[in-house]
Amino acid sequence: MNFSFELPTVVRFGRGAVRENAKLLALGKRAFVVTGANSGRKSGALGDALCALSAEGVAYEVYEGIGSNPNVSACRTLGQRARAFGADFIVGIGGGSPLDAAKAIAVFAANEIDEQRLFQYGYENGVLPIAAIPTTSGTGSEVTPWSIMTDDTAKTKRSFGGTLTFPRVALLDPTYTEKLPRAITFDTGMDAFQHCFESYLSMRATPATDALCLEALKRFSHCMQPLAEGKLEGIREELMLISMLGGMAIAQTGTTLMHAMGYPLTYFHDVPHGRANSLVLPAYVAALDAYRPERLREALNALGVSKDKLCDFARMHTDDCTLHPDEAALQFYAEQTSRKDPMATTGVPGDAASIYRLYRIVFPD
Amino acid sequence: MNFSFELPTVVRFGRGAVRENAKLLALGKRAFVVTGANSGRKSGALGDALCALSAEGVAYEVYEGIGSNPNVSACRTLGQRARAFGADFIVGIGGGSPLDAAKAIAVFAANEIDEQRLFQYGYENGVLPIAAIPTTSGTGSEVTPWSIMTDDTAKTKRSFGGTLTFPRVALLDPTYTEKLPRAITFDTGMDAFQHCFESYLSMRATPATDALCLEALKRFSHCMQPLAEGKLEGIREELMLISMLGGMAIAQTGTTLMHAMGYPLTYFHDVPHGRANSLVLPAYVAALDAYRPERLREALNALGVSKDKLCDFARMHTDDCTLHPDEAALQFYAEQTSRKDPMATTGVPGDAASIYRLYRIVFPD
Repeated sequence: MNFSFELPTVVRFGRGAVRENAKLLALGKRAFVVTGANSGRKSGALGDALCALSAEGVAYEVYEGIGSNPNVSACRTLGQRARAFGADFIVGIGGGSPLDAAKAIAVFAANEIDEQRLFQYGYENGVLPIAAIPTTSGTGSEVTPWSIMTDDTAKTKRSFGGTLTFPRVALLDPTYTEKLPRAITFDTGMDAFQHCFESYLSMRATPATDALCLEALKRFSHCMQPLAEGKLEGIREELMLISMLGGMAIAQTGTTLMHAMGYPLTYFHDVPHGRANSLVLPAYVAALDAYRPERLREALNALGVSKDKLCDFARMHTDDCTLHPDEAALQFYAEQTSRKDPMATTGVPGDAASIYRLYRIVFPD
Repeated sequence: MNFSFELPTVVRFGRGAVRENAKLLALGKRAFVVTGANSGRKSGALGDALCALSAEGVAYEVYEGIGSNPNVSACRTLGQRARAFGADFIVGIGGGSPLDAAKAIAVFAANEIDEQRLFQYGYENGVLPIAAIPTTSGTGSEVTPWSIMTDDTAKTKRSFGGTLTFPRVALLDPTYTEKLPRAITFDTGMDAFQHCFESYLSMRATPATDALCLEALKRFSHCMQPLAEGKLEGIREELMLISMLGGMAIAQTGTTLMHAMGYPLTYFHDVPHGRANSLVLPAYVAALDAYRPERLREALNALGVSKDKLCDFARMHTDDCTLHPDEAALQFYAEQTSRKDPMATTGVPGDAASIYRLYRIVFPD
């Protein structure tokens, strides 16, 4: 047995988490605050955060324009803007996109580097401290070092991150998710579940991540029916918790084949991230059933469903996707995905031909 | 739901963890290394650590005299010695005592304060960074902020700790525990189990600590028979892992009534810490069975034993204890313990009379 564990983020979870932890939020004297066009205001998180920063005498500049799947060049420009403001820390508020953007901005604010340099971890001047306030329950980005960027040079989504890009503090208030529409709740909730499922099934799983994932999968089993029926009131808090537990786990293990196969569907077809993974899920489960059946069975046991029932659930999540990538596209996606070494992380063959066959389970001829 | 999670210690677990992580161990330029009279050398941990420090060009001074249940005045003197040496970090190697001592020394090295001030967390000059290398599988101190000191002024064991006293790095190599005698392995292994059991049953339990504790309890269920039979070869690694998971949990929740009732038995009767808790365990279980039966049942389910079987196991651990505290002593211990507020942390009545009755389960008239 040989493993690492690293989770330097200070977490406060619960109603009022931002308002009651102003001192924790104030990581410096000048904050550059980034959020989505709507997510920060509608959720109430931006108001709470600015109120807390003011109470601590922190000066701030706010950027409310982070869209879905932020791209690296926009983040570089925002990093320069944060530097010009004299920011000594970054506050990210929103779903995965603003939180991931906050990490990139924190790197670019501290380092005058070009776009591609972002993806080679290790930054000469370090990284500005980051505070993360999620307003969706999906990525768990508030407790991971990972940031997923759209990279138009590489024509895909690419990730970066390491010890320096863990948020210093994560403040999770489930009330911020109360007004999220059903579709976003389902998409992000599935992403949270997929993190726990993939992390448990990862070749990099450790006893600590197993613990976190099993607890989260058990909890998710009670959310499946309400998610399917759109009865969300009773599960908002649970979903935020599951998202956080999944984040803590993938902070250690990373994600695997399901995410890797999902990225091209998001990049080229604009399928929301969690839904892209759900599309891929039946193929991922088939691969694991062939190569790691025992481990798959353990994950399904925690979830309390059969393999088929889980795949049905994922298909229900994606039943309005009318995507039909052509032969050439699938070959290209398989080629791209095969560079991510799923054999080492997923434990299934990861050559382009094998992955192409998996895509063909999702998109039959 | 309202909880915190904080675990800033970077963990490396596995054979060769110290030798292979010299860069992580080197938290500064001058190390004050503290260990037990035997534990550091016999285990091989001291040699590995000094070798790693030398490789990184770190100067060091070594103190090999930390005994069981270190007292605060000795740690203050050692803190002054570390300061005189110009230490910029502390390395603790050993069982709970040297690791706990390392934390106190790290406080005293950075702060010229009197003994009692140690117990009021919050230190003007901060705390020197701490690296922890366990050579027993019990306290989990390598991943907690807590340090338990013998305080001869207060005539008991007292704890201190907070964010500043988390070790920065914990290097866990189970091979260091290979030569531990059976009695020490049992005593410390029971301490590890007790942390998981108490943390799960604590009123401060959180979803994250539940996850860690359930995984650890499940793993401990496979160690009980080997511990009872002294067949330790196959479980050394598991015990170190359980100890670490328990540490991660009590870092969040703290310990509760079983530990509080055990301390006087260690302070006044020299009963090893884990064994003192085992003496108390049947009374603790009886109290929980009366006040929190559902939660107790969940913990026992994870452990796969009945209440009676667990108590029998604890009795077997303590069957050579011939302790007979008299009436006055028990009254005094109950009075001392009642100041620790077990109602808030354990969820059972915590007045002196109630605790006295629990002690009387352990030591009948």
